[in-house]
Amino acid sequence: MHSDRPAVTVMGLGSMGSALAAVLLERGHETTVWNRSAHKARPLVDRGARPAATPEEAIAASPLTIACVLDYEALHGVLDPVAGSLAGKVLVNLTSGSPEQARQAAAWARSHAADYLDGAIMTTPPGVGSPEMMFLYSGSHAAFEAHRPTLASLGDPLHLGTDPGLASLYDAALLGLMWSTMTGWLHGTALVGTEKTPATDFTPVAIRWLTAVAGFLTTYAPQVDAGRYPGDDATIDVQIAAVDHLIHAAAARGVDNALPELLRSTMERAKAAGHGSDSYASVIEVLRNPADGT
Amino acid sequence: MHSDRPAVTVMGLGSMGSALAAVLLERGHETTVWNRSAHKARPLVDRGARPAATPEEAIAASPLTIACVLDYEALHGVLDPVAGSLAGKVLVNLTSGSPEQARQAAAWARSHAADYLDGAIMTTPPGVGSPEMMFLYSGSHAAFEAHRPTLASLGDPLHLGTDPGLASLYDAALLGLMWSTMTGWLHGTALVGTEKTPATDFTPVAIRWLTAVAGFLTTYAPQVDAGRYPGDDATIDVQIAAVDHLIHAAAARGVDNALPELLRSTMERAKAAGHGSDSYASVIEVLRNPADGT
Repeated sequence: MHSDRPAVTVMGLGSMGSALAAVLLERGHETTVWNRSAHKARPLVDRGARPAATPEEAIAASPLTIACVLDYEALHGVLDPVAGSLAGKVLVNLTSGSPEQARQAAAWARSHAADYLDGAIMTTPPGVGSPEMMFLYSGSHAAFEAHRPTLASLGDPLHLGTDPGLASLYDAALLGLMWSTMTGWLHGTALVGTEKTPATDFTPVAIRWLTAVAGFLTTYAPQVDAGRYPGDDATIDVQIAAVDHLIHAAAARGVDNALPELLRSTMERAKAAGHGSDSYASVIEVLRNPADGT
Repeated sequence: MHSDRPAVTVMGLGSMGSALAAVLLERGHETTVWNRSAHKARPLVDRGARPAATPEEAIAASPLTIACVLDYEALHGVLDPVAGSLAGKVLVNLTSGSPEQARQAAAWARSHAADYLDGAIMTTPPGVGSPEMMFLYSGSHAAFEAHRPTLASLGDPLHLGTDPGLASLYDAALLGLMWSTMTGWLHGTALVGTEKTPATDFTPVAIRWLTAVAGFLTTYAPQVDAGRYPGDDATIDVQIAAVDHLIHAAAARGVDNALPELLRSTMERAKAAGHGSDSYASVIEVLRNPADGT
């Protein structure tokens, strides 16, 4: 198989690694694959991937190796014995882990003369290959620029900075936002559900409302950076009164109130720290300083 | 002043009531205003509003009266003594309160031969008049249809159903989603802020991510209605492992972890209730049944 797209190696063929390799093949990259259990390579080999017999052979096959394994223990288990073969290559590590693990891996790669990019995939396996899905990268800017067209096959590649820990830090922060949003949505869905409103009726309204909420975040971000939170639109005091409506409505309908109660106590801590007349953005002051206002 | 737009009365001229009256005036409605403290009417009267000397005179001036006062106590304090003057009129009540208060107000209005619509304004005063901002209504469908063009001057009017409590129930549910999302965003902003990432760098990425999250909600809503939560994309078990990355990253940086800890314990409750291999949507089962899984 010949192609003018650069050759890529994918190591780790779980559901995400397999999705990465499948998209690279679709886009015409000469794709070499390796997995500890070789049988997972079979569907990809059937579609044109080259199977590597060993990690060493896999790395040797391409200038760029993308690793996507279960965790850092698995990553080092595979790569440490063959570290010498990484010299002069680029390693893009999409394995989930902590910023500290990413920084250690970057230092380890550097010590073996490899260029290192850490990454976080902000979609599920079926979303790989969609140009609107974000792939976050941090670490070597040169490696990012050199392989940007290949990375762009997988999704929209964003380089966050040269600190290799940034992609996994953003990943954690964005997943926290996701769980908060999904849990708030499920709480609201449970609440309106007690009055026989289907989730499929409530959700389009909720999604439209999230667009308005995104507007509030855009207003609040510069307030956070400035450390000043003018409460022109809606103060913490006003929102404490409003959250009581939610808590009462949910309590009256037997819906769990742990999340709204936590939100209320967080607002109360902001008020106790002197932010009653400030905007909701001032809540960051108590999140940054857990001891404040308690 | 003459106009082919219907006459409207606005009662209550706090910042929201004043914004409503100002937009109605701008759109060419003959607008009568009343407020307990008459001086608040002055800026509107300067722009062409007709001041009413009494609540009775205010209601008599227009077929449609929009009430937007502090709370239901204030509402009944103003309207109970002049209830007779509402006969044959439409009352749109945008005062914040509980679904039960809305239902009582609807019954009270009906007993005085008035048509009643309850409403919730899903924006701040500066957003009034923008066609993309949602105004939620519930109650009389006939009143909604008759006055839809007037209501459309204020924002995009959505009629949720004839139960007058629905607008305030949705309001509570949507505000809960807003606080959850904003607090999740602030937690993430605090986390990346420890590594010197400004909020204005993180927020556009967070907002883009919310678009992906909205896609997850669209996937999950029919799962909630069906009571079946296939975990093809990401299971509760996988997300419990991922939330630990967030908790560790935040703890290592001195960021408050009350919110992620609550999210984790909610996921653990879903797992304990047998949803470990299900999607995140299954969390609704433990929110609906607070006693389960504890």
